[in-house]
Amino acid sequence: MANPSVLTSQREDFPRWYQDVLAKAELADNGPVRGTIVIRPYGYAIWERMQAELDDRIKALGVANAYFPLFIPESYLRKEAEHVEGFSPELAVVTIGGGKTLEEPVVVRPTSETVINAYFSKWVQSYRDLPMLLNQWANVVRWELRPRLFLRTTEFLWQEGHTAHASEDDARVFALRVLDEVYRDFMVEVMAVPVLTGRKTARERFAGAETTWTCEGMMRDGKALQMGTSHELGQNFARAFDISFLDESGSQSYVWQTSWGASTRLMGALVMAHGDDAGLRIPPRLAPQQVVILVVRAEEGTAEAAAALAAELESAGLRVTTDERLETSFGRRVVDWELKGVPVRLEVGPRDLARGEVVLVRRHTGAKESVPLRGVVQAVADALKEAQAALLEEAGAFRVGHTASAASVQDALDATAEGFATVPLPALGPDGEDRANAAGVSVRCLVGADGGPPRPDEPDDELVAVLGRAY
Amino acid sequence: MANPSVLTSQREDFPRWYQDVLAKAELADNGPVRGTIVIRPYGYAIWERMQAELDDRIKALGVANAYFPLFIPESYLRKEAEHVEGFSPELAVVTIGGGKTLEEPVVVRPTSETVINAYFSKWVQSYRDLPMLLNQWANVVRWELRPRLFLRTTEFLWQEGHTAHASEDDARVFALRVLDEVYRDFMVEVMAVPVLTGRKTARERFAGAETTWTCEGMMRDGKALQMGTSHELGQNFARAFDISFLDESGSQSYVWQTSWGASTRLMGALVMAHGDDAGLRIPPRLAPQQVVILVVRAEEGTAEAAAALAAELESAGLRVTTDERLETSFGRRVVDWELKGVPVRLEVGPRDLARGEVVLVRRHTGAKESVPLRGVVQAVADALKEAQAALLEEAGAFRVGHTASAASVQDALDATAEGFATVPLPALGPDGEDRANAAGVSVRCLVGADGGPPRPDEPDDELVAVLGRAY
Repeated sequence: MANPSVLTSQREDFPRWYQDVLAKAELADNGPVRGTIVIRPYGYAIWERMQAELDDRIKALGVANAYFPLFIPESYLRKEAEHVEGFSPELAVVTIGGGKTLEEPVVVRPTSETVINAYFSKWVQSYRDLPMLLNQWANVVRWELRPRLFLRTTEFLWQEGHTAHASEDDARVFALRVLDEVYRDFMVEVMAVPVLTGRKTARERFAGAETTWTCEGMMRDGKALQMGTSHELGQNFARAFDISFLDESGSQSYVWQTSWGASTRLMGALVMAHGDDAGLRIPPRLAPQQVVILVVRAEEGTAEAAAALAAELESAGLRVTTDERLETSFGRRVVDWELKGVPVRLEVGPRDLARGEVVLVRRHTGAKESVPLRGVVQAVADALKEAQAALLEEAGAFRVGHTASAASVQDALDATAEGFATVPLPALGPDGEDRANAAGVSVRCLVGADGGPPRPDEPDDELVAVLGRAY
Repeated sequence: MANPSVLTSQREDFPRWYQDVLAKAELADNGPVRGTIVIRPYGYAIWERMQAELDDRIKALGVANAYFPLFIPESYLRKEAEHVEGFSPELAVVTIGGGKTLEEPVVVRPTSETVINAYFSKWVQSYRDLPMLLNQWANVVRWELRPRLFLRTTEFLWQEGHTAHASEDDARVFALRVLDEVYRDFMVEVMAVPVLTGRKTARERFAGAETTWTCEGMMRDGKALQMGTSHELGQNFARAFDISFLDESGSQSYVWQTSWGASTRLMGALVMAHGDDAGLRIPPRLAPQQVVILVVRAEEGTAEAAAALAAELESAGLRVTTDERLETSFGRRVVDWELKGVPVRLEVGPRDLARGEVVLVRRHTGAKESVPLRGVVQAVADALKEAQAALLEEAGAFRVGHTASAASVQDALDATAEGFATVPLPALGPDGEDRANAAGVSVRCLVGADGGPPRPDEPDDELVAVLGRAY
């Protein structure tokens, strides 16, 4: 790494490192209203790629996107008492509109659940309308007293999926398909974050749900970040919003529902799961720019060689940017691109060119090698493939190395100073979760014997609880 | 057309036809808070295609997307007095957040202009930072007293571009490139709406702009719809927000800016520019589904034949849907797909199949023909190409047929009962615009001798004013 001193080191002060890297990699900035965020072009380009990857997977499940209003009548939130309990202290309320005090204040959506369910009630009539599978990409607002960019902001961007099914089984299968085929697949294969997938305890699950499934990632400080959840809602909202249908036998039934969401928190996960003391390390499949071509000096055809190289790499389907800011020192530019986490850097200098070579630098290891010009496309493609796999493997090894297998609650709690701790659910006992919470630790999820989501027939006393400190 | 009676006819009551078609084609619904809109999956799928097409063109100009907060401090809006004048009666104001009355109320963005300019002020330091080219896709709120779905809604979706340049010329050229390469190109080539592009009069231009360029479409009731605008802002906002830079000569200068936007209004334009008494007619390049395969009856391998056909068309890169809702009458299903405006319908019935044929129906003309199974892909591709061109040509002929060339203001006003009227700018005279406005008519734009945007060197007295009634 060229110059790690531009950032506070992770070991010294992880939260400070996080703030520094967001600023210096130009990912985000604080908004003018406390708790809000400005997502800068580089950060937004990453988010757009996250959106596109998630959206493809969501649509592959047959889900259609739609858009519901930002403003929700207060009365809607009262309909589902449990719901209001959850959100009321977090609400932003519009009391003035069009220059007048409103007769009924409107709430800025903390989620669109209530309004989407109100329309489900209108749109679902018969079993032929089911399953109804909707998703929305939108901004939502939950007033944050202790905001942190990307992790907890008063306004954030997310997708929320809402589905209605004719049977409980159909809903259950769908919630698990979202967990696996949308979230886990994206997080592991694209973000290179080896998430744990499991079930939340009754205490940790979403208030309106029967079952909450979660994806939990481990950050490089050993803490957990919940990266996406998928809920089986049973008939809770169907009853509250009267979403019923004429079934095939001719009688009226309530639908069975799911809901699921992931947000710009994923940006925080990306930073904290892969970043190092030199900045971001973006997995190639997610990187807006996979390769940066650095023109070392403006002499002997370097600019022309860089342009030809860029064209060649682009025509091979790679995302390439060229840095010709010759007024800025080479070292400073190297630091910039390392901060931004571009997976591969090609340095094009006159001496290398004279030898028919360029220098290829891998961001994930810092390793440098000379590559003959003729073989650059293949060398870059290989390096990208290697980086994608290596980041996943490194994060996986980190998680394994920071997960303790504990036999008692006390051992588990001690171990969470460093990372996760697993403890058999029977050993956690009825009071174990209380003790953990009192110590600032939570049960991140329950997993089955195979380490994945518990199967429906898997008895509770064979499950394992994963404990950790969490964002 | 199978059954035009499902809609009020355009001739009878155009506004009612518009409402009917939005509901029956399942494009949109009223939201629970007055003035808000629910964009249903079919409408949103069209909007997603509009977004993708516009976004590609925006990025091709070197513009990057970013995201700025929904909430803006009231003080920001006060900074640009002209600006506040424009928006204040339309604002939605949040006075309660996190369960408490806020010390400083926050405004829900009516545009992000003020906040983006505040960050420009921070990010622009030197000429090397210029041009700075940003765009944002987001929801905005302007309280509407007379809402109309897609055309005027309290919340709408749009993109707003904001750029900062080192010179007035650079900004001017950029504003015109957006007008031409982003908006006009998309509207003409993809939406098949032959928009007029021209300059707004001083009265019609955006309050903060030096020059406003516009794209004006003619709807099938002869009225105008402003479909997108691009503004040269001069240094107005640069002064208000102190956006200055160190220029190449080492002195401090204010930047020159542009801003430009297009919104979900485009959905209204699509409906009203092409729709007929049977419903929507969506240009193939925009259609989420370009071909619908209708299984006529469930016998003699029709379903299998339809599936094979769908696979063949999809592998040719077409967007295809198959309708096997055999419990619904064939006639009813035909009506549904005509309402939705899918460009080509293939009817797959046992008798046709026995002859090795299917029936191909063009939505834009209603014409039916039998096509041999072997030649279906080519026939569909040809029909789609033809439909794209025909819709543009038809809309062009309609506009020409509904545009009168007038020599006096009175003649022009009379002609606007049917459509547009052009009048030489000198004949409009200083009071002509007053008279027009008093009669409910506005100057939609000024065009040059060649019918396009006036060139910088084109004298005012050679320009032509286009008058019309507008949405």
